[in-house]
Amino acid sequence: MHEKRRYAILTEGYLTDRHAKTAHGVMQYGRDDIVAVIDSTYAGKNAIDVVPHLGRSSPIVANAREALALGPTSLLLGVATAGGVVPPAFRVQILDAIDAGVEIVSGLHEFLNDDEEFVARAKASGAKLWDVREVPDGIPLFSGEAYRVPQTVVLAVGSDCAIGKMTVMLELERAGRAAGARPEFVATGQTGILIAGKGIAVDRVISDFVAGAAERLVLSVGQTTDVTLVEGQGSILHPAYAPVTLGLLYGCAPDCFVLCHDAARNRIEEFDVPIPDLKTLAAMHESWVAPIKPARCVAVALNTHKLDEGAARAAIDNAERDTGLPADDVVRFGADRLWRAIAKAAA
Amino acid sequence: MHEKRRYAILTEGYLTDRHAKTAHGVMQYGRDDIVAVIDSTYAGKNAIDVVPHLGRSSPIVANAREALALGPTSLLLGVATAGGVVPPAFRVQILDAIDAGVEIVSGLHEFLNDDEEFVARAKASGAKLWDVREVPDGIPLFSGEAYRVPQTVVLAVGSDCAIGKMTVMLELERAGRAAGARPEFVATGQTGILIAGKGIAVDRVISDFVAGAAERLVLSVGQTTDVTLVEGQGSILHPAYAPVTLGLLYGCAPDCFVLCHDAARNRIEEFDVPIPDLKTLAAMHESWVAPIKPARCVAVALNTHKLDEGAARAAIDNAERDTGLPADDVVRFGADRLWRAIAKAAA
Repeated sequence: MHEKRRYAILTEGYLTDRHAKTAHGVMQYGRDDIVAVIDSTYAGKNAIDVVPHLGRSSPIVANAREALALGPTSLLLGVATAGGVVPPAFRVQILDAIDAGVEIVSGLHEFLNDDEEFVARAKASGAKLWDVREVPDGIPLFSGEAYRVPQTVVLAVGSDCAIGKMTVMLELERAGRAAGARPEFVATGQTGILIAGKGIAVDRVISDFVAGAAERLVLSVGQTTDVTLVEGQGSILHPAYAPVTLGLLYGCAPDCFVLCHDAARNRIEEFDVPIPDLKTLAAMHESWVAPIKPARCVAVALNTHKLDEGAARAAIDNAERDTGLPADDVVRFGADRLWRAIAKAAA
Repeated sequence: MHEKRRYAILTEGYLTDRHAKTAHGVMQYGRDDIVAVIDSTYAGKNAIDVVPHLGRSSPIVANAREALALGPTSLLLGVATAGGVVPPAFRVQILDAIDAGVEIVSGLHEFLNDDEEFVARAKASGAKLWDVREVPDGIPLFSGEAYRVPQTVVLAVGSDCAIGKMTVMLELERAGRAAGARPEFVATGQTGILIAGKGIAVDRVISDFVAGAAERLVLSVGQTTDVTLVEGQGSILHPAYAPVTLGLLYGCAPDCFVLCHDAARNRIEEFDVPIPDLKTLAAMHESWVAPIKPARCVAVALNTHKLDEGAARAAIDNAERDTGLPADDVVRFGADRLWRAIAKAAA
């Protein structure tokens, strides 16, 4: 485990906005402490009342100075803006935190470490600047060591991008812990990294090393972990992103897959690629890895958020009939059933 | 075309090793002059006697100083090492050449321009440092434009790395030109770039953009080109490099494949992955691309250099029987037959 951070999460003006999805993800799934949310719009309230579905209690304060009094180790920029730039209103808050020697954490495209003022002030105060999208140095080539880890490695795969693969693995981790197991979520993208406190944004890794990055992640889990739940990326059907997906497929050397699919989607979103039926898609993944290290699909995670409850139940039933695998919407109906399928595969 | 260089090629200890494939490729297919090969193991001999199949006469000298007396414009690091590091024994030779103001050309992952000592000494002497793998700025995401190019796009695929995929495409280009067609070799690796004078080292591209890089290469061919012959990389069977291979498979949007195989190899060299029979391997490639853009294997290029002529002929006959496709060793027996298979597919 990484050392626990104590976050002040900066959402100034965005707390209830969809662009605050970084803050929302960390509040809902993060295991770091949150000492304060900084948003003058709701100052004086508690986050549990403003965004109750996230299930996280935290005081909301008006600015970084008030948050600093609560002893954060880190200031998290809690937004994912269009274009990935730092919102202008954030700047003064960030500088106050930097001057206090507090670490700044950002998942934005615009790197903190490319901002001369941030860098200079951080140098003066000793504050760290963590750009979570920045790939660590020294990622090795894939070596095959991942074939010999003691954990059961489970990889989320799917029919397209942005269908909830990260959420599925986080819900499965939660269900596994509740069941007394010791699963560990492994992050491969920026939001996942913020939630887990570590990880590698594999889509930023040089292509020759993407399998090596995946392997390194699988080797990095805690000694007591029994099931490694690797966040997936992209899809083997995606004309642009499939190389990243294949890097995970080979580099993680998974023992099994959870097949993720948005029940309302039948084509890859940006390209004219039809999504085959789930049985075919599961078989494709199994046949791709078969010559390297065989792995089976053991569960289907359906995202049914666009369907009403009746249609969702029907889609899940269809997926089970089609694939012969347990299927569920882990957000809507809980992850216990799919966790049991994984626990069975791991036994 | 690029300006002609006069190369001293440094292979110290590697001249007859497969890791000297950079040297071998430039000696066999390059349009640049070669004033010397530097390899103390064979000093005093001529390259035509040590590696006769390359067909290039050049004195072999013991060190860079002797080579410098022969007036090179450039010192080429003639190896492709695992992990892409500069072999320690090369260092003193490189520094001698830098101090003499001679350009250093490297296709290794470890960049000359990231080495403080090389950079400082080059600055002092005025020597240029050309890292061939350095990726151009501004490579876009894959867009799908490659689906609409007028050329027939042929991609070399294969059962493993270092089996001669580049060579096959260069021999096919030569045969196609001799037959009056206008094929164009497209380089995707450092040796190919050294030979063609342009290209992108796709294994060096950030994984999210590797399909985009492949697409850009396919869009970059000359207006009069009728057949684009894309150099392949890695293998879909290779645990470490398959993501790069898939980037080409999807990003080039090929119309057909030439399946390359070393007839003496039945396992991936660095990993315990058996190579299936050629019919299965051809079918794997066809099934992987089928949902995206269908393409067929139209020829099998066998590398029979480890077999005697009788065994080579038998291996070729077996490959034809197994796959139902024309097969040949284009280096040993000429590329005309396989070119005709491509011309037929392009018609």
